[in-house]
Amino acid sequence: MNEIITVEHGSGGFKTNELINKIFSKHFANEILDKMEDAAVLKVAGKIAITTDSFVVTPLFYPGGDIGRLAVCGTVNDIVMMGARPQFITAAFIIEEGMDTDTLEQIVISMAKTAKESGVAIVAGDTKVIEGNGGLYITTTGIGKIIAEQISAANCKPGDAVILSGTLGDHHACILSARMGIANNIVSDNVPLVEPVMTLINNGINIRAMRDITRGGLGTILNEFAKSSGVSICIEEEKISVSESVSGLCDILGLDPIYMGNEGKFIAVVAKEDAETAVELLKQNEISKNACIIGHITSRGIDSKDNTVTMITPNGASRRISIMHGEGLPRIC
Amino acid sequence: MNEIITVEHGSGGFKTNELINKIFSKHFANEILDKMEDAAVLKVAGKIAITTDSFVVTPLFYPGGDIGRLAVCGTVNDIVMMGARPQFITAAFIIEEGMDTDTLEQIVISMAKTAKESGVAIVAGDTKVIEGNGGLYITTTGIGKIIAEQISAANCKPGDAVILSGTLGDHHACILSARMGIANNIVSDNVPLVEPVMTLINNGINIRAMRDITRGGLGTILNEFAKSSGVSICIEEEKISVSESVSGLCDILGLDPIYMGNEGKFIAVVAKEDAETAVELLKQNEISKNACIIGHITSRGIDSKDNTVTMITPNGASRRISIMHGEGLPRIC
Repeated sequence: MNEIITVEHGSGGFKTNELINKIFSKHFANEILDKMEDAAVLKVAGKIAITTDSFVVTPLFYPGGDIGRLAVCGTVNDIVMMGARPQFITAAFIIEEGMDTDTLEQIVISMAKTAKESGVAIVAGDTKVIEGNGGLYITTTGIGKIIAEQISAANCKPGDAVILSGTLGDHHACILSARMGIANNIVSDNVPLVEPVMTLINNGINIRAMRDITRGGLGTILNEFAKSSGVSICIEEEKISVSESVSGLCDILGLDPIYMGNEGKFIAVVAKEDAETAVELLKQNEISKNACIIGHITSRGIDSKDNTVTMITPNGASRRISIMHGEGLPRIC
Repeated sequence: MNEIITVEHGSGGFKTNELINKIFSKHFANEILDKMEDAAVLKVAGKIAITTDSFVVTPLFYPGGDIGRLAVCGTVNDIVMMGARPQFITAAFIIEEGMDTDTLEQIVISMAKTAKESGVAIVAGDTKVIEGNGGLYITTTGIGKIIAEQISAANCKPGDAVILSGTLGDHHACILSARMGIANNIVSDNVPLVEPVMTLINNGINIRAMRDITRGGLGTILNEFAKSSGVSICIEEEKISVSESVSGLCDILGLDPIYMGNEGKFIAVVAKEDAETAVELLKQNEISKNACIIGHITSRGIDSKDNTVTMITPNGASRRISIMHGEGLPRIC
């Protein structure tokens, strides 16, 4: 089946059924999806985490990933960051006329592979077709069983360590390079974070707060933690790793890694006494082999009503890090 | 706040937070959403139904509804059709640059109102901004607790009655009229079907299969029931009600109500002995006051390997109804 997709494929009739059978059901097949009618039936118990995200990244394919891999990773990672084991995801496709079914199938295959890698089943879906130019938007919703309930942006305490799982800016720099036609060796970090996080939880690490570093970057997330927990945060610039090629691109284009989006990095705030063990555990996994303590949670200064995020530069100066203003990079995820 | 939305609003930084606080959180506020971080936390137990749908309808506002109302109703109705009580929905917004925040807020208010009407809480969300012309795509995912487990397209049995809850074609005719600039009094049937369906379930009606009649229309759904259950279906044309104004439009444009989409009508296949009671119960509700038995499930003919859907016309001829071929109406939902 190689066809150009038209509005007929979104009609709900024969062509829609054909698309579902020949592409979606074929690659996503599992016991729950196979039985799905208007909705899928799940058995669940206890506390679950639920999240939804739309993915509008351009280009659809880039070094290290594609919109399908991103749509699974993004949602899986949001679930993991709540201290939950991802179990199920749904996927809704808005397809622009002009996409060909081979390209769609390639993306669907990538989603199926990433779902398997993440240990989740794709249990429900939808397809709509709009006018356009062969573009694609995917919205995924994820569900997971919460196994570490205490994790929350509001749970950081003075003395806690701030751990960064790896280099900053890879996904952002990769998408930007692809869009600007810059040839380099930058590859997106697009990866499910299930394994490193489950390792921390299973080894009893006392994680206070956790967040994958996507849109808005590290700076925006640390400000959210500081505000939610009523604390301040101090990090050291020289502890933050950025790959040589990303660093080079940032220098040329005047980008700040602190505000760049990633798709396979996270920040974990961990109780002081568990911090070294946590870093050791993370370093054993290829995904988080560059994990490092980059700073600490502090109480607010006596005179300050603010919850500040401060970065100590290599020459000892301190720089106030605020939430990201301005546009960042559009359509990065 | 009346601003034109730009890519900055989708950056994940300051402008995104502003949009979330001033529009989404303001109108969707509830205990679960207020505590949401990367994901929301739900308590659930037992069997749940989950469904996801993207909504791409144009125009965004039409007589009887808007894309926000549609996005809530569509997902709520899919959950209800599984014999489940809708509880939670998530909403992901893909906004085209150029939309103004007042228009967005109006749609968000409509969603909040429809969610309340349906008894569901909006528990998680996402916002992305793409290039474009002020358009909007909303993807909703719904979760509900299953209370009538037996309901399935595969559960129809010979002798069962086929009940249609009301007039066909209203939403389709409304969207088409709006798009073609035809002035008439056609209003979309855009409504949550929670009440009439819960009335059937709570009164112990033995529902075999149920489906809201959206894209693809009645013809496509009956074929799906016939195929899934290994039965044939016979319906009578004169029992199918179509409003006078919709019927007039169909005559002029050569449309067949059998394949037209609705957003507040459903088909229920019910055990023979419960059929009259079911119709009486439905008639008590304004939403389903025109409910009527339109036909019956039959076994397959001895010579036939097919599961056919046949419609008896008013002059006694029989017409074979197949699944919809062709494009229907693009962007109807």
